[in-house]
Amino acid sequence: MSALPLQDFYCIIPAGGVGSRLWPLSRADAPKFLHDLTGSGSTLLRATWDRLAPLSGAQRVMVVTGRAHRAAVEGQIPALADANIVLESEPRENTAAIGLAAAILERREPGVIIGSFAADHVIGNEPLFRAAVIEAVKSARAGYITTIGITPTEPAIGFGYIHVGEPLKIEGATSARQVISFVEKPNLKTATKYLKSGDYLWNASMFIAKASALLDQIGSSQPELLAGLLELAEAWDDPATRGPAVDRIWPGLKKIAIDYSVAEPAAAAGKLAVIPGHFAWDDVGDFASLAKLNSGGRATDLAILGENARVLSDASSGIVVSQTGRVISLIGIQNVVVVDTPDALLVTTSENAQRVKSVVEALRLTGSTEVL
Amino acid sequence: MSALPLQDFYCIIPAGGVGSRLWPLSRADAPKFLHDLTGSGSTLLRATWDRLAPLSGAQRVMVVTGRAHRAAVEGQIPALADANIVLESEPRENTAAIGLAAAILERREPGVIIGSFAADHVIGNEPLFRAAVIEAVKSARAGYITTIGITPTEPAIGFGYIHVGEPLKIEGATSARQVISFVEKPNLKTATKYLKSGDYLWNASMFIAKASALLDQIGSSQPELLAGLLELAEAWDDPATRGPAVDRIWPGLKKIAIDYSVAEPAAAAGKLAVIPGHFAWDDVGDFASLAKLNSGGRATDLAILGENARVLSDASSGIVVSQTGRVISLIGIQNVVVVDTPDALLVTTSENAQRVKSVVEALRLTGSTEVL
Repeated sequence: MSALPLQDFYCIIPAGGVGSRLWPLSRADAPKFLHDLTGSGSTLLRATWDRLAPLSGAQRVMVVTGRAHRAAVEGQIPALADANIVLESEPRENTAAIGLAAAILERREPGVIIGSFAADHVIGNEPLFRAAVIEAVKSARAGYITTIGITPTEPAIGFGYIHVGEPLKIEGATSARQVISFVEKPNLKTATKYLKSGDYLWNASMFIAKASALLDQIGSSQPELLAGLLELAEAWDDPATRGPAVDRIWPGLKKIAIDYSVAEPAAAAGKLAVIPGHFAWDDVGDFASLAKLNSGGRATDLAILGENARVLSDASSGIVVSQTGRVISLIGIQNVVVVDTPDALLVTTSENAQRVKSVVEALRLTGSTEVL
Repeated sequence: MSALPLQDFYCIIPAGGVGSRLWPLSRADAPKFLHDLTGSGSTLLRATWDRLAPLSGAQRVMVVTGRAHRAAVEGQIPALADANIVLESEPRENTAAIGLAAAILERREPGVIIGSFAADHVIGNEPLFRAAVIEAVKSARAGYITTIGITPTEPAIGFGYIHVGEPLKIEGATSARQVISFVEKPNLKTATKYLKSGDYLWNASMFIAKASALLDQIGSSQPELLAGLLELAEAWDDPATRGPAVDRIWPGLKKIAIDYSVAEPAAAAGKLAVIPGHFAWDDVGDFASLAKLNSGGRATDLAILGENARVLSDASSGIVVSQTGRVISLIGIQNVVVVDTPDALLVTTSENAQRVKSVVEALRLTGSTEVL
């Protein structure tokens, strides 16, 4: 076991996505990472920070977020240094976000190892998480772009999977294995096959690598994007040059997910390693997942989220999210999803949780943008 | 056909019940009869008034209601004369309400025929309704306490039934028949038998009789109640005596439904006639009934009630009652009942509509009376 915090390690938290499938709880001005979705008393962002700070040291965690969320992020993380908050003038997907952070950190500290972890996932059993990160950092020091894949506990169809190959025999990272490929969300039949085979892990969007290795990989698949990121990074730490560089470069950066720009090509080139994680993990992608997370997995329970919730349930199950303090009465309705906010109400079922995103699109198209 | 308005006829509208099964739409301070439940633009009370005024003349319709509802009732019916509003200091069931109105009217106009009609029912095809009332008034003139029973269109289990006997051969009321008995709400098997037999009608709580005949019937089953009503009526039209009489007598009056005090004993004594009504009728007893009423009977439709409703439905059916102007989004949920009010939200299904009353009781027991 390595001593904590780890040397030469820096954490990056891309805090970008709204979480449309959690509308009307998640909004443009109240994205998923700013909510406490577990009743822990912490927002997902704060819980992510608390989980990462011991690994890299609290002064070595960088947050990349939208300008609009600056105050909220600083409110959540008072210890966040100015130099550790990277503000996006507009969303340009996570290759730009993580790549810019990596480029800034590589300039400040050549040879640094970065680890990128989503701001809005839920993780249980932190000692096992820390053990996986420690191994991943060793694998990264050995030159691999390294991900942590979650050992599946069910044939989930809401996650992407990582197809795992041979052990890599890296010193101090004995569980590291080659990644054969990243695969998209499967159907139930395929997911069941994956689960049985034991050769697949869930893709939890965790990437640990030398910043230089990550940037090289971006450069080999997206050279223009890398050039823009390096130019931005060069201008970043001088207040006189940062603003103009952002205005000139950021809006033109290619929007591409890091799975496509880094993970898939690195896997194809045999440069990607994976550490199997044995901790509980959820991306809380929709209300069905949120219901499960908050009812201890008991399908007959009604999960209730909201500080001042006043819920009267008669033989009902599912989830109620209450943000209004109104009396909410449920009678004989199963697997229901009720999200009660001051200006919008959602009523659906767990089975339809993935369709919430299409409602958000319909609201946008019909001009009801004030509730998005 | 008789000329309208009918001579010697006076209408009574008991406007009392809250309609607990329609909570949180119906409240103590906003009872069912003060709502527009059909999207017609009229409250049920106003629609009742509009239906009755042509039959008796607008100056000959009396409303019996709670003191708390005086302003709302007068707002709905600006033409209502002071002498035609009877205020209850507290609810004492409808024998007291209708009996007091009958006693007051009999004193003012001996020999008058009264017709009592609920304030919160929905009626279609008014010409057929008027034709039935005209026959019922003739039957009442012939001495019968007369009800109008609705020809069933389905084996409803939410209504009481009237068991019909032989034709009575009353001049001008050729469809009048003897009532054998009043029967309580049946189960589905019994209701199906009733429907097939053709000998049963729905009890719509309509009673037409000489005021004196109605009072005599109350007296023969409830002599103390009658004595109280007569004493109240004697004091009623003198402002100096009304208040003290109400304070002294009203709180002690027996609470009993007119079905028990009048209809059942009169039927047993062979003094009750019924006119079969062939018009559409509904007591809008619960949200399942309300959904049906507002979706034209198409079970796959989503009925929407509320002036400023902003409902986005994706493959959903049932009913949404919107009182808040919030965006309400429904996804893939069937036979749902959503009632969205400023301080309370109900989510249930049509199948559970009758259970709403028990929620109201639970809220009362738990002290959440501010939303009742």
